[in-house]
Amino acid sequence: MKNILTLVYNCRVHSKHLPAVFTQLRLSYNLPQWGSNKTHRKIKIPNPFREIIMADPKIEEILAPLRAHVKEQGDLVRKLKDEKAPEIDIKKAVAELKTRKKVLEDKELSLAPTEELFDRSKMEDLIKRRFFYDQSFAIYGGITGQFDFGPMGCALKSNMIQLWRKYFILQEQMLEVDCSILTPEPVLKASGHVERFADLMTKDVKTGECFRLDHLIKAHLEKIKSEKNTTAELKADIEDILVKLDGMNADEMSALMKRFNMKSPISGNELTPPIEFNLMFNTQIGPSGLVKGFLRPETAQGIFVNFKRLLEFNQGRLPFAAAQIGNSFRNEISPRSGLLRVREFTMCEIEHFCDTKDHPKFESVKDTQMLFYSADSQEQGRPAEILTIGEAVARGTVNNETLGYFMARIQLYMLAVGIDPKKLRFRQHMGNEMAHYACDCWDAECLSSYGWVECVGCADRSAYDLTQHTKATGTRLAAEKKLPAPKQIEVVEAVPNKAAIGKEFKKDAKVINDALAAMDSAALEQLQEKLESDGEYVLNTANGDFKLTPNIVSVKKSLKTIHVEEIIPSVIEPSFGVGRILYCILEHNFKMREGDEQRTYFSLPATVAPMKCAVLPLSGNAEFQPFVRELSQELTNVDVSHKVDDSSGSIGRRYARTDELGVLYAITVDFDTMKEPHTVTLRERDSMGQIRLPLADVPHVVRDLANSKISWADAEAKYPKFEQQENVKGAAA
Amino acid sequence: MKNILTLVYNCRVHSKHLPAVFTQLRLSYNLPQWGSNKTHRKIKIPNPFREIIMADPKIEEILAPLRAHVKEQGDLVRKLKDEKAPEIDIKKAVAELKTRKKVLEDKELSLAPTEELFDRSKMEDLIKRRFFYDQSFAIYGGITGQFDFGPMGCALKSNMIQLWRKYFILQEQMLEVDCSILTPEPVLKASGHVERFADLMTKDVKTGECFRLDHLIKAHLEKIKSEKNTTAELKADIEDILVKLDGMNADEMSALMKRFNMKSPISGNELTPPIEFNLMFNTQIGPSGLVKGFLRPETAQGIFVNFKRLLEFNQGRLPFAAAQIGNSFRNEISPRSGLLRVREFTMCEIEHFCDTKDHPKFESVKDTQMLFYSADSQEQGRPAEILTIGEAVARGTVNNETLGYFMARIQLYMLAVGIDPKKLRFRQHMGNEMAHYACDCWDAECLSSYGWVECVGCADRSAYDLTQHTKATGTRLAAEKKLPAPKQIEVVEAVPNKAAIGKEFKKDAKVINDALAAMDSAALEQLQEKLESDGEYVLNTANGDFKLTPNIVSVKKSLKTIHVEEIIPSVIEPSFGVGRILYCILEHNFKMREGDEQRTYFSLPATVAPMKCAVLPLSGNAEFQPFVRELSQELTNVDVSHKVDDSSGSIGRRYARTDELGVLYAITVDFDTMKEPHTVTLRERDSMGQIRLPLADVPHVVRDLANSKISWADAEAKYPKFEQQENVKGAAA
Repeated sequence: MKNILTLVYNCRVHSKHLPAVFTQLRLSYNLPQWGSNKTHRKIKIPNPFREIIMADPKIEEILAPLRAHVKEQGDLVRKLKDEKAPEIDIKKAVAELKTRKKVLEDKELSLAPTEELFDRSKMEDLIKRRFFYDQSFAIYGGITGQFDFGPMGCALKSNMIQLWRKYFILQEQMLEVDCSILTPEPVLKASGHVERFADLMTKDVKTGECFRLDHLIKAHLEKIKSEKNTTAELKADIEDILVKLDGMNADEMSALMKRFNMKSPISGNELTPPIEFNLMFNTQIGPSGLVKGFLRPETAQGIFVNFKRLLEFNQGRLPFAAAQIGNSFRNEISPRSGLLRVREFTMCEIEHFCDTKDHPKFESVKDTQMLFYSADSQEQGRPAEILTIGEAVARGTVNNETLGYFMARIQLYMLAVGIDPKKLRFRQHMGNEMAHYACDCWDAECLSSYGWVECVGCADRSAYDLTQHTKATGTRLAAEKKLPAPKQIEVVEAVPNKAAIGKEFKKDAKVINDALAAMDSAALEQLQEKLESDGEYVLNTANGDFKLTPNIVSVKKSLKTIHVEEIIPSVIEPSFGVGRILYCILEHNFKMREGDEQRTYFSLPATVAPMKCAVLPLSGNAEFQPFVRELSQELTNVDVSHKVDDSSGSIGRRYARTDELGVLYAITVDFDTMKEPHTVTLRERDSMGQIRLPLADVPHVVRDLANSKISWADAEAKYPKFEQQENVKGAAA
Repeated sequence: MKNILTLVYNCRVHSKHLPAVFTQLRLSYNLPQWGSNKTHRKIKIPNPFREIIMADPKIEEILAPLRAHVKEQGDLVRKLKDEKAPEIDIKKAVAELKTRKKVLEDKELSLAPTEELFDRSKMEDLIKRRFFYDQSFAIYGGITGQFDFGPMGCALKSNMIQLWRKYFILQEQMLEVDCSILTPEPVLKASGHVERFADLMTKDVKTGECFRLDHLIKAHLEKIKSEKNTTAELKADIEDILVKLDGMNADEMSALMKRFNMKSPISGNELTPPIEFNLMFNTQIGPSGLVKGFLRPETAQGIFVNFKRLLEFNQGRLPFAAAQIGNSFRNEISPRSGLLRVREFTMCEIEHFCDTKDHPKFESVKDTQMLFYSADSQEQGRPAEILTIGEAVARGTVNNETLGYFMARIQLYMLAVGIDPKKLRFRQHMGNEMAHYACDCWDAECLSSYGWVECVGCADRSAYDLTQHTKATGTRLAAEKKLPAPKQIEVVEAVPNKAAIGKEFKKDAKVINDALAAMDSAALEQLQEKLESDGEYVLNTANGDFKLTPNIVSVKKSLKTIHVEEIIPSVIEPSFGVGRILYCILEHNFKMREGDEQRTYFSLPATVAPMKCAVLPLSGNAEFQPFVRELSQELTNVDVSHKVDDSSGSIGRRYARTDELGVLYAITVDFDTMKEPHTVTLRERDSMGQIRLPLADVPHVVRDLANSKISWADAEAKYPKFEQQENVKGAAA
């Protein structure tokens, strides 16, 4: 039990394993609510990136046997797959591979040189206190998995989105759309979400408390397995069950519940039989109650159903990309980990439709260095490696230029919004963890105190979605592509003798003509054969069977010259989880002043900082007011977001407050400001350096600083230093 | 029947009457789907603003008797209200007032000089064809009341929102928040939405088709009334019912359905008894199915439940404003009129919390001229009038400076995004049309082919919402205000003898102590009286009644000095419907080229135009490509949104296409571009004027034009005209 707690609080758990861990905990304990943990526990954040670069031989010595252990198992998995061994054997081998991989990764993280000590509860305290975000409807008791963004979180989020729009939509000339959230059932049936976007759960029959069934069974069996008086035979049996659990259906799980007499681990009450719980929120559209609808679980489907309109907008040409920024909803069984697993979230999604996967702008990014953790490396126990994206594509590590181009652009964006380059990697999905629609997938993962968090997915969805919607609607979601040269193809068609059909079959004539027109080439082949061999052919239609003779219908083969071919394009989908990126930005930029751990702040980059500047009158003296008002007006005129803080409190205290909000610059109006020539102090957040400059210069200097047109060093070189520096220790008091 | 159709297609119907009109139509006919009407019907758009300014005496002569007719009734209503006449008499008089007002308004509109001919179906065709927006899920048959915005609509919407953020959040330093859409039931119970946000409907028992009950009854009775063989007695009876209909409950309406034997007007089938239909979409939050939730019907509640956090963020001080941009949902019974009545829509809402209603920045807007249509003018048959907002507040037409300040800012924004100033008015709600929470309300209405459309509401919600949430949660949503001078107040409290209570009442002691602590001053007064007169007091508690004697409890009165008072602030709420404004912008900027009605375009202002610029190579000549690529890169570098149109088609045809998209400028690369010095042609959309300028100058010239830093006239003065003008007639062919 203590182990599990340590696991969670030390947070070396890969994000993919978190739900399982939390459910186990939830089964045994009442975990503290998000943000309610007031103990200041320090979490070691290792630096895997540096570790890789420095490749300490001593560390490698320790890791070598573990790497060999993974490789051995990886090779076994490959061998079994090559030999087409029974599925259960492969599954067992994969499960063992995952376990060995996890041991290696944990060891790697624990041995990596520690970069810093991160105090999550201190950061969460700041986030709550300054209302970056907080639980929704808290005065009504709150709802887990829902968060409201306050002024600072909202500005940060909105700046992230604006920059995203610039990086992707504007710079890549994508087609932005804004589609409905409420989605009728047939759309999500076609996409596979109605059938497959579900988890099995069971309920406490008395309290109604819900448990994810696989997690409950796993926890229950692991408990039995760890008990002293469990026989070796039963232990082996349980091991076998645990391996098979992933692929079990409701009946099999139900049998296990009965066999092991499972009860609610919290109340000890009886449990219901397995219930399939779809993770989509459902509702009815319109007053009749007959049109079933869901809140979309992803924004992508809105783009797919508009494919024809978008293709037409692009004048029928491929490739093109469409993008959408908007909210999606997933009714998680037990949402946890703050912003990382929520029920309502903002996504930025791109669907890039293409027929070939080379990319005209790949050349411009090919030298970008990135950290790749390929499926192969994962299977072979090798660490992630740094390559240029050009090398990665050339080697085949990354499948194609288009995927590679987007991965490089994703990295560029992540660094621009403040993700620490040392805590960003691209991890490829292994074959057995890919979504039902994907044929290749790389996740941009950020290292946080919760482990590696998937922040951006970059999947090759192939032609899956367009094909599905074409099947469901009969509307061909395809593009026409001009052939390099005209091509001759053989066309086979049924030639009905309409007059004879009308005469013989009367009111059934239409049905017969339609059925003949709808025949595919195989059916036509058969028709011709039968007419030739038997002199007749029996046509099945909705109105019954009809005997057709050669005077009624014949089969014609001809050559046709075609200039275009119809293709269903492939789709590359970069999909950004805004809330997760935002959380990682906050973690990566959370700082403490040297010598004063109480004085924490967010060192956010100018591009996304919620406010660029604060205006602080030294005191409540009325004579400062006109200067403050004028400054505020001038800053507004040059579009610099700012805040006037004329509350009481020492100037140092107010500096500390603006630091907490991540405000980049502070302008102080003091008694010297009133003297001619009017001057003010300008202070920079990270260095706490101060300069003195003319009042009239301030607005455009701050604007240029905020837009990164000039650096703080430039400003310091141009204007005199302000000597009366703040006392960090005293200010925080 | 023809009258109703004429009414709708001539669109002189006030937007408030549209649902009724549409339901009537829906009961009798199948109205064409949105956008499917291909006949090019012209709609006269009158110009009421100019009419008012010019005040044609001949027109006034015609209107005078109608105005007198309204005034007579308005006076009667006032008299009845003053005399506190029976409610039913007042209701009757108000209904008659509304009818007379409608006759007057229709006449006014019909006599107003016609500004232009507007062809709605032509505009809708352009909107669909160029995918500004279109029906959602059309390949699945579509859902009424849901729309997807394509690249141009989405960019327009996003530019509108960016400008809104600048005008309101940045310039007014508002606190922006981003709250959850999924809202648990108790929140919306407190706000009154669960109880009151509902309409009565009835269903066809066989087909399940739904009808809004009041509209169905009205249409049915009006049909009977208009029939030849209806007796005068029945007609009078029906008239009486129609007047009372607005305030009838489900039982009364049910009785009417039975009395008049109402059936489905479409199928003739039986109808269900009245069903209360809440317009909120409901769902369950979490897997248990026990937490009932709704999709928010407005964004405002998210701000109210965060009031304490926001007040704290503002360091406890009033006034401050919070703002939210986001989607809201209403399950309309029969959504119609394109973007005007939909099920899912984006709102921009502001909640300005204040204790006094003067406004420090009112001075800066006081000379803004606006068109006011006050409740008084509406009741007295007077036309809307132009006043400065300063005059309107001074006269009391607009209640206070804060309301006035926001109204002026709303107008400023509406004009900036392209609303025609001649088609914008502010109409005050009359007493009987105010929402349940509002104590004063002005709507910014835009004149469109659907009549006057409410686009922005500006309501004084008083302390309603904060009070309601305080009652529901026990969390005091109030601010503390420092008193100008300390104040002494009398404090009355019960002083329990806790030892005696414990001894006498044992386990009930806590309940008794709590009940005593919760007594208000009236109850304490009674307690003291009873103890003095009877020597005992019977206390009612959850655990039963208890007899208290003077040795158990006494009442103490004392004086206390207080420095702050607690106040629940008032709320002024400007609430913008983005979709409605967007629709009106499109109507107000829809133009046809003189001499070619087929060549339509949107003359959108630079601030909101979806794209600022197009780059057009004269032909597919490969030598143009490097110039096109370079231009595109340079435009991207200076953040100018643009589109390269290198499709085939004459240059005139491509100009026409960019015009349709509302693109402001087009740069053409031609054979002369390849000669040194490299030059290109720049064309302006509205005037179709062209100039020739150096390639290197183009990016910053276009940027400055798009940001309104220079005008087209400036550019024309600086660079030579390009003489080879386009032939409008030919180009469109």
